[in-house]
Amino acid sequence: MNASSLMSGVLAPVVTPFKDDYTPDRDRYLKHCQWLAAQNCGLAVFGTNSEANSLSIDERMSLLDMLVEGGVDPTRMMPGTGCCSIPDTVKLTKHAVDHGVGGVLMLPPFYYKNVSDEGLYRSFAEIIERVGDDRLRIYLYHFPQMSAVPLGIELVGRLQEAFPSIVVGMKDSSGDRENLEAMLRNFPGFGYFVGSEALLLANMRAGGVGCISATANINPAGIDGLFQKWKTDEADALQESLNQVRGTVQQFPLVPALKTIISHYGSDSEWNRLRPPLVELDDAQGEKLIADLQAIGFEMPGL
Amino acid sequence: MNASSLMSGVLAPVVTPFKDDYTPDRDRYLKHCQWLAAQNCGLAVFGTNSEANSLSIDERMSLLDMLVEGGVDPTRMMPGTGCCSIPDTVKLTKHAVDHGVGGVLMLPPFYYKNVSDEGLYRSFAEIIERVGDDRLRIYLYHFPQMSAVPLGIELVGRLQEAFPSIVVGMKDSSGDRENLEAMLRNFPGFGYFVGSEALLLANMRAGGVGCISATANINPAGIDGLFQKWKTDEADALQESLNQVRGTVQQFPLVPALKTIISHYGSDSEWNRLRPPLVELDDAQGEKLIADLQAIGFEMPGL
Repeated sequence: MNASSLMSGVLAPVVTPFKDDYTPDRDRYLKHCQWLAAQNCGLAVFGTNSEANSLSIDERMSLLDMLVEGGVDPTRMMPGTGCCSIPDTVKLTKHAVDHGVGGVLMLPPFYYKNVSDEGLYRSFAEIIERVGDDRLRIYLYHFPQMSAVPLGIELVGRLQEAFPSIVVGMKDSSGDRENLEAMLRNFPGFGYFVGSEALLLANMRAGGVGCISATANINPAGIDGLFQKWKTDEADALQESLNQVRGTVQQFPLVPALKTIISHYGSDSEWNRLRPPLVELDDAQGEKLIADLQAIGFEMPGL
Repeated sequence: MNASSLMSGVLAPVVTPFKDDYTPDRDRYLKHCQWLAAQNCGLAVFGTNSEANSLSIDERMSLLDMLVEGGVDPTRMMPGTGCCSIPDTVKLTKHAVDHGVGGVLMLPPFYYKNVSDEGLYRSFAEIIERVGDDRLRIYLYHFPQMSAVPLGIELVGRLQEAFPSIVVGMKDSSGDRENLEAMLRNFPGFGYFVGSEALLLANMRAGGVGCISATANINPAGIDGLFQKWKTDEADALQESLNQVRGTVQQFPLVPALKTIISHYGSDSEWNRLRPPLVELDDAQGEKLIADLQAIGFEMPGL
């Protein structure tokens, strides 16, 4: 394993704009990815906050093709590829690896609940074998509140031991600081991303490598600022400032809140549309969100 | 709506056999479906117990094609078609309707949790509009323990009112007797299936139409016996006898237990294989299960 090839820093689980027939809005999508990339933000396309689980396999592959053709650097991309079924996960993962992505973010199969570690191990092992590509870098996606299928220390250890150059990291969206510290104690050098910038400083201090956070869609430069300066005296103040923005946004359901914000600051009401089962904020929620952000001086320069 | 076209009785969420490369074993699958159909058992192919959420869209369509070509009556089929994404659900549903199935069993989109009734309503409405076929009959699939996305009375009422000839029934796998009674009080005439034969008599007495139960894979004639005689004096004794088999099987994880039983009684070890993330019973579990079934005189004639 070439350590220098591993991903780090701040990534956005890129929100996906939709047209009024709910098809992905390719132009707005590319433009948003370019805006993020210009602020040193990596692209965790097809994450939870991308409504990726509301997209078909073909829609995801087509959007990734479009981004790469549009000149977005694949090495800064970590597409979500974990589906319920092994064939679907393999298809998306192969496609992403063939585009030269920096890594893939892999949910466990998430329909069946209370499955055994043995069953999860067999899933990941089968996927790795079928993809059959040395370039594959998997970041395991631990998000028990949404997937309802947690990835515990024993399973992660077994996967790391069996596939040391492939299972190289994790995104931990549990928000559980004890879990992050335990993982990094057990697996020093693991490419550990937290799922919220509220834990970015804690993660860096514990040996982690960055964060993949919904709010990086709207505050990429701010979050990257802390990543760049986490070893400096400014770090705690920067963390505090990030927490203020995060706290304001997460009063509301995250994906609709992000789309309201992009829509407002970009003066583009087309952005404020979600694919079912998610729904947009109502007017009162949207107005409160924007008023609260303005009250703390929030801006989105260059959007 | 032509009431006589609605489904009723006992259906099996047909278990799916796999070869050693985890591809579906088409011959064994067809044979098992024929065995079930010969005992007056309807086929809820691609349900939870079918490991359908571990199959790709193409695998499901190909298996359904094969069953219809193999002569299995589509009007006694209720394929599961509910996926996380609207395009996938629409594709499977159209395909099933084109085969003339009696109905489809539709999970809500199940990745995103704590979604609103408005979001779920929009999902189902969008799917119905895109399928755009008067022959469509949807049975809503309520299984909060697995999908983690419950379907409440208000949502069901709204869907029924908007699409009275299409949203015709429900499978309730919650095991919650109060829920079943409340649904049938609110929606008399709704095609209500319970997800376990343990509630079959209660469901029929409350105005329901049958059950779709994992154990119908191994005890179809027994369960159909109660369905045929639920109005007679024998009903309570028949229910008691079904509960004994059910109780024996559900000491263990259901899908592996069913495959162990089919494998044992059919003298065919090839049946005892699951696609990850599910795993087979270990030897001690399997031996206890079979011994317990033998102790109550369980048999699978004609398998």
